[in-house]
Amino acid sequence: MAQRLVSSGAWADTNGSTQTPEVPVNGSADKLKPVKFRSKYKHVGAAHYAVRPSVLSHDSTEVPSFLGFRNLMVLTIIVMNLRLVVENARKYGLLVTLKSNISSYDLRIGLLLYALTPCHLFAAYVIERVAMNQAKRALGNRKRSDAGIDAPETERERKDFRTTWRWIAFGHAVNATLALAITTLVVFYAIGNPGIGTISELHAIVLWLKTSSYAFTNRDLRHAMLHPSPSSKALPEIYKQCSYPNNITLSNLTYFWWAPTLIYQPAYPRTERIRWFFVLKRLGEMGALAVFMWITCAQYAVPVLLNSLDKMVTLDYPSILERLMKLSTISLIIWLAGFFALFQSFLNMLAELLRFGDREFYGDWWNSTSLKGYWSSWNKPVYHFMRRHIYSPLIGRGWSHLSASTAVFVFSGFLHELAVGVPTHSILGVAFLGMVMQLPLILITDPLATSKSITGKVIGNCVFWVNFVFVGQPLAAMIYFFSWQAKYGALAKGRSNPVATRS
Amino acid sequence: MAQRLVSSGAWADTNGSTQTPEVPVNGSADKLKPVKFRSKYKHVGAAHYAVRPSVLSHDSTEVPSFLGFRNLMVLTIIVMNLRLVVENARKYGLLVTLKSNISSYDLRIGLLLYALTPCHLFAAYVIERVAMNQAKRALGNRKRSDAGIDAPETERERKDFRTTWRWIAFGHAVNATLALAITTLVVFYAIGNPGIGTISELHAIVLWLKTSSYAFTNRDLRHAMLHPSPSSKALPEIYKQCSYPNNITLSNLTYFWWAPTLIYQPAYPRTERIRWFFVLKRLGEMGALAVFMWITCAQYAVPVLLNSLDKMVTLDYPSILERLMKLSTISLIIWLAGFFALFQSFLNMLAELLRFGDREFYGDWWNSTSLKGYWSSWNKPVYHFMRRHIYSPLIGRGWSHLSASTAVFVFSGFLHELAVGVPTHSILGVAFLGMVMQLPLILITDPLATSKSITGKVIGNCVFWVNFVFVGQPLAAMIYFFSWQAKYGALAKGRSNPVATRS
Repeated sequence: MAQRLVSSGAWADTNGSTQTPEVPVNGSADKLKPVKFRSKYKHVGAAHYAVRPSVLSHDSTEVPSFLGFRNLMVLTIIVMNLRLVVENARKYGLLVTLKSNISSYDLRIGLLLYALTPCHLFAAYVIERVAMNQAKRALGNRKRSDAGIDAPETERERKDFRTTWRWIAFGHAVNATLALAITTLVVFYAIGNPGIGTISELHAIVLWLKTSSYAFTNRDLRHAMLHPSPSSKALPEIYKQCSYPNNITLSNLTYFWWAPTLIYQPAYPRTERIRWFFVLKRLGEMGALAVFMWITCAQYAVPVLLNSLDKMVTLDYPSILERLMKLSTISLIIWLAGFFALFQSFLNMLAELLRFGDREFYGDWWNSTSLKGYWSSWNKPVYHFMRRHIYSPLIGRGWSHLSASTAVFVFSGFLHELAVGVPTHSILGVAFLGMVMQLPLILITDPLATSKSITGKVIGNCVFWVNFVFVGQPLAAMIYFFSWQAKYGALAKGRSNPVATRS
Repeated sequence: MAQRLVSSGAWADTNGSTQTPEVPVNGSADKLKPVKFRSKYKHVGAAHYAVRPSVLSHDSTEVPSFLGFRNLMVLTIIVMNLRLVVENARKYGLLVTLKSNISSYDLRIGLLLYALTPCHLFAAYVIERVAMNQAKRALGNRKRSDAGIDAPETERERKDFRTTWRWIAFGHAVNATLALAITTLVVFYAIGNPGIGTISELHAIVLWLKTSSYAFTNRDLRHAMLHPSPSSKALPEIYKQCSYPNNITLSNLTYFWWAPTLIYQPAYPRTERIRWFFVLKRLGEMGALAVFMWITCAQYAVPVLLNSLDKMVTLDYPSILERLMKLSTISLIIWLAGFFALFQSFLNMLAELLRFGDREFYGDWWNSTSLKGYWSSWNKPVYHFMRRHIYSPLIGRGWSHLSASTAVFVFSGFLHELAVGVPTHSILGVAFLGMVMQLPLILITDPLATSKSITGKVIGNCVFWVNFVFVGQPLAAMIYFFSWQAKYGALAKGRSNPVATRS
């Protein structure tokens, strides 16, 4: 392009150039450009030899490329953030310290919880064994009965199955609820450090969901064994590898315990071998990202949050808005890093170690043209659980799509509140509302997703980003941080274990 | 995409899915995805039915689209700047005032200069008339001579032409130099307001260049008339419309005076009629952009510049860097607006009014892959002048490309120093150096432009942006602003007419 421009000033013999139409096409000018020739006169060259429009004017037929401005955009973002780095360094100096402020007390309780919670999964296993034996007996009776195994389920048999299931369900319910309740209470009342609290709480939630999935799935499998359906389609093909009751074994359960999924299947697609180099790379990513997030939090997020406290006390809205926007960029970066570390690096590493074949832990949610698309693609494990054990069964019972979705988001909101509110010792219901509020937003943005026009999709995508990155996260973070500070004001004084210091 | 994700959780019968290779292609998973079917069991669906890699993992064959992140990038820029707007409003409130701080004294001198400077163009016209008559006499002598008109130029004739040209050149030189010198001295010693000073100085420079081009071009045309060359290629075809000496008329000169070009041609490509609506639109653009730039300067640029003063006094480099980066974004926006207002809106309006056909006042410089590309495309009028009246003649005299380019950039640097240093009353040579320094940078970046690889071009483009937007402009602005403050400290005290206040 530089070349073209240099030569455009060349000596120009413009035969008939003035006969060109009033509003010519850009191309014509080039066509008219004559061959260069050396004149003995140096000061007479005709630089203006054709009627040509400006590049940016609407008269020009060919739209110019704006690739350069994309590069400028990237550079601007880099420079603006570099500036914030310099500003921050000048204001605060180095805030990252290596001294851990985690009390050994918190640590011990955390480890205890981590060791005890999985036991409930094995309690569920015991319950399942009992159920299995009972089912086997029932099957024996049917075989011996003159009707035979293929006879349709009688009313009495249905009643029997229901009653036994009630007892089994009760057992599972008590067991699973205990798993969650104990951890929740311990975290809320005994663990001061929000970090350890969050990890313990998340661990409990995961195991709770796994236990429920284990119970529900096995109930259906049991019924399928008792009453084999004529259609082979009753159960997925893959289950044939390990059909009930062969799946009720400790090894099978242990695999499910560690598998990067929340839904129980007797068998999963598996890879042939563990690629150790793959595992190492994922491990390296996790390490690097952890350090990055830790520095970003300590150096950038915390000061912004601390500066926002007095603004929130005085409800100085413009300042709160300014803080919010400043925080949004940081929280976005941290969130993206966290997402990659957990869903790409950690889950892939775990899957590789377990030779777990299905690595679709997330879709390309960043292209979501609606919130529905986002929620159904950014966290596949939870999405699968919700769909399989809440949404579909409710639909099966004749619920409408909307009411079933509502149930899903209410339940999800409850989990979010547990994960955020309990470790921060402030059950505000903000996380809960944040999730439930998604439903109306989904109804609003869905038309954009289904719209044929590119603009519609782009708008939908922008709505998703704004709602999620610029409003959702930083606002919630600010509110919970504020309530934490209001309760303990610990971070402000450099202490972060109020419980330990109170006790 | 939302749709795809929703259906991916569907009930899955995965016949033979486990026979898929260890590292499957994304597509295979979709191929394997079975038809949905309704099972009477709701809790047994197999969400994990195939070996699939994660979207972002290298195992996946199809590269995911990152369109969403482009939207995020744009939104981030918007939010970051919105934040600065809020911050600025909180810090300074409204700084834009309608009260003009231009002294009537400055205004009167400015108008006087605006009225007088063009006179030199007409003085040049008088000189040309004298030259024309002398040439006509010479032509008459040749016709009457037995050799006739087509005889080759004799030594005596060459000497005569040289001597007359010396006198004419002397006249033009005195006249043109006066045009520039008078304005420069008046602006430097009498005009306090930098705005008026800059406009007057630029006006003088433009007229100076026009006068020189008028003189040089007519000299060559005159010689071409006296000694018609056998090859018809001596002069561009378009000049046949108005061949020498028919072009030495007041109307022809007046057209050149107003035409949006710096190089004189006896004839220019013309459009057929004036599109008044086009003119109005350009006028509207200019108005809107002027207001925008005025507000941006007063509200954002000035505070940043004022805050940078003490940092520059104490040479606090990190802070200066921080200020520089903050200023870069603002100056970039102002510069882009100014470019559009001047080169797109104003010059197009002028051209439309004069039915001036060639609207190529700039190329798509934003895509420049080297500084050479930028300098030869962002300001075509000056580029044409430099090429036609400095670069090419020097090349014609056997100068090397490098030395000729050096001459161009030295001259251009001189003009820049005049345009910036004189109105700010601080001849620092920074603008001059800024231009001359471009030459080594061009030599460095040129390989990138000519490189075949896309990356090379992108790097070249980024180098151009960094050098230009993030270093060049804001740094120069800061330095001249600082020296102005050091001299008068007027802006700091809200006065901006030090000369008037001194007198």
